[in-house]
Amino acid sequence: MSRSINLAVIPGDGIGQEVVAQGLKVLNAVLPEDVKLETKEYDLGARRWHRTGETLPDAELEAVKEHDAILLGAIGDPSVPSGVLERGLLLKLRFAFDHFVNLRPSKLFPNTATPLAGRPEIDFVVVREGTEGPYTGNGGSLRTGTPAEVATEVSVNTAYGVERVVRDAFARAQARPRKKLTLVHKNNVLVFAGHLWKNTFDKVAAEYPDVTTDYLHVDAATIFFVTQPERFDVIVTDNLFGDIITDLAAAVTGGIGLAASGNINPTGAFPSMFEPVHGSAPDIAGQGKADPTATILSVALLLRHLGYEAQAARIEEAVSADLAERDGTARTTDAIGDALAGRVAG
Amino acid sequence: MSRSINLAVIPGDGIGQEVVAQGLKVLNAVLPEDVKLETKEYDLGARRWHRTGETLPDAELEAVKEHDAILLGAIGDPSVPSGVLERGLLLKLRFAFDHFVNLRPSKLFPNTATPLAGRPEIDFVVVREGTEGPYTGNGGSLRTGTPAEVATEVSVNTAYGVERVVRDAFARAQARPRKKLTLVHKNNVLVFAGHLWKNTFDKVAAEYPDVTTDYLHVDAATIFFVTQPERFDVIVTDNLFGDIITDLAAAVTGGIGLAASGNINPTGAFPSMFEPVHGSAPDIAGQGKADPTATILSVALLLRHLGYEAQAARIEEAVSADLAERDGTARTTDAIGDALAGRVAG
Ligand SMILES: CC(C)[C@H](C(=O)O)[C@@H](O)C(=O)O
Ligand SMILES: CC(C)[C@H](C(=O)O)[C@@H](O)C(=O)O
Repeated sequence: MSRSINLAVIPGDGIGQEVVAQGLKVLNAVLPEDVKLETKEYDLGARRWHRTGETLPDAELEAVKEHDAILLGAIGDPSVPSGVLERGLLLKLRFAFDHFVNLRPSKLFPNTATPLAGRPEIDFVVVREGTEGPYTGNGGSLRTGTPAEVATEVSVNTAYGVERVVRDAFARAQARPRKKLTLVHKNNVLVFAGHLWKNTFDKVAAEYPDVTTDYLHVDAATIFFVTQPERFDVIVTDNLFGDIITDLAAAVTGGIGLAASGNINPTGAFPSMFEPVHGSAPDIAGQGKADPTATILSVALLLRHLGYEAQAARIEEAVSADLAERDGTARTTDAIGDALAGRVAG
Repeated sequence: MSRSINLAVIPGDGIGQEVVAQGLKVLNAVLPEDVKLETKEYDLGARRWHRTGETLPDAELEAVKEHDAILLGAIGDPSVPSGVLERGLLLKLRFAFDHFVNLRPSKLFPNTATPLAGRPEIDFVVVREGTEGPYTGNGGSLRTGTPAEVATEVSVNTAYGVERVVRDAFARAQARPRKKLTLVHKNNVLVFAGHLWKNTFDKVAAEYPDVTTDYLHVDAATIFFVTQPERFDVIVTDNLFGDIITDLAAAVTGGIGLAASGNINPTGAFPSMFEPVHGSAPDIAGQGKADPTATILSVALLLRHLGYEAQAARIEEAVSADLAERDGTARTTDAIGDALAGRVAG
């Protein structure tokens, strides 16, 4: 465990700025005095793109690489063509730093709203593959814009890429009390990728006899997310299916305002990146209305990744206690950050 | 409107047999006396595959092609390797008969269970593309079974294929009171396919100025399915996204036991195929426990497609009335079929 943290901060667009400020506030409050926190902010996102046409220049990618971890707010603005910042900045970071474990915990805290009747117990973690699948940018279009256009998207899956994330998920499942791992894919239609995933999953399962395993097609999984979410413990899935089901998971566990995520390179070869699952929400940006809790919970994941388990747990307990006392009165972004910083302060 | 219906019946596997029997019972009951109904059953599915190794021989495909429409129960059994029957039978029919409109209505009937608190009003239709996307079987694997394996899946999208289904969806939206159409895709990541879909959607939208349009990424769409399903009227989307969101839609509108679908070729060049969204449910097969309502509602879609609007509406009203009177007492598959046949009988 390092006694200093050198953090890259990418606030990004819209509410990204506001929520990251609160994340840093809580991070400062929770860290022991002898841990030196250095932060460097990178001006990346829509404004930068409008100003210079750049999304993530090589020099900045190199600079970010030197940090211990990255805290990211949100990327995207309607003024930028769809895909430019997603591919050129967010996914570029995930791919360049080989963030093959995209970790997305879903927990229904007490006293939070869920659209589900009967408030089922929900406490699971999605391990989303982060560097392959249909996210590789592999595809193209021919005769673009004509009635004869053909556009393709290629999902790329390798034994190397699938096995490492499946292993990570088995280890996480084994470390949890229920020790259950569900593979989510669509192997009855996507037979080539599906067989690779299923065979790898079954092979690694043999090394984890104490982990209960299960397989669900992605379409069926969405049904269980709303009818029986308590059946899930750890889920491992591909990049695109993981994208879809984690938004649904966030929706049933109190909404996207609470959903944290880590883009993790478990080898430590590159800095891992922590970000709320939500987007930049330009409609409410700058009004102090954004809930910074998802970012603050992402800071907890960041601390856990860097070895500060006690501090990570302290943040999670603070969030739980804060949510338990929320009475529906609207609080500003800043007020929520202050409340949580107050709770975690030594 | 033909005064005779020559129907191909593919009961398939598991509960498929039981629910199709009820669908035919209600079809017989609702048809005017002067309409001649002929049915021919095709023995296709898991048993056939075990017996002969065949999924859908050419001669049978040719024979099925001569019918006015197809009623299908469910395909699939755990004893058959995943993908064999799906690709070799179900998808083969959808592709051979160019079922480019996969129509899936979602309506929350009164007095039915939904996992959503507060019972939002839900009444929308998903127009799922049925002949392209990642369902074309385009892909492969290299060095299969080795640590160096690469497996790909190619999503194929053509201007021809996208435009025809988008046009169908606009026409359906225009014919409904709310006249709203939402495109669901993931054009911030799947930029090639996404741009084709979005550009086609925007182009056709210009011809339908009275239809309100909207775009959602598929991940965000799943959130609204549980937090604000009343915002949807008609949705148009690609084959895979449509697969995923229609299972979720079924889950929030009373479950897969009520979800009907039509695989439609609107040109009439080939017979259209109607089937419940649910699978073969081998765990409850042969016990009279399956709810045949989804199949019976699929029969309504079949009748509407063949021009029997009054009869289609009669079935839907009967289902609505039957659901309104359900008191939670379990009824057998047969009893539900009898009740609905009784209600629709002239
Ligand atoms: C913004 C987008 C590229 C991203 C994704 O699809 O991964 C987002 O939806 C997420 O889940 O982090
Ligand atoms: C069985 C499977 C091939 C099929 C599909 O993916 O289309 C099913 O899930 C459906 O939605 O009809």
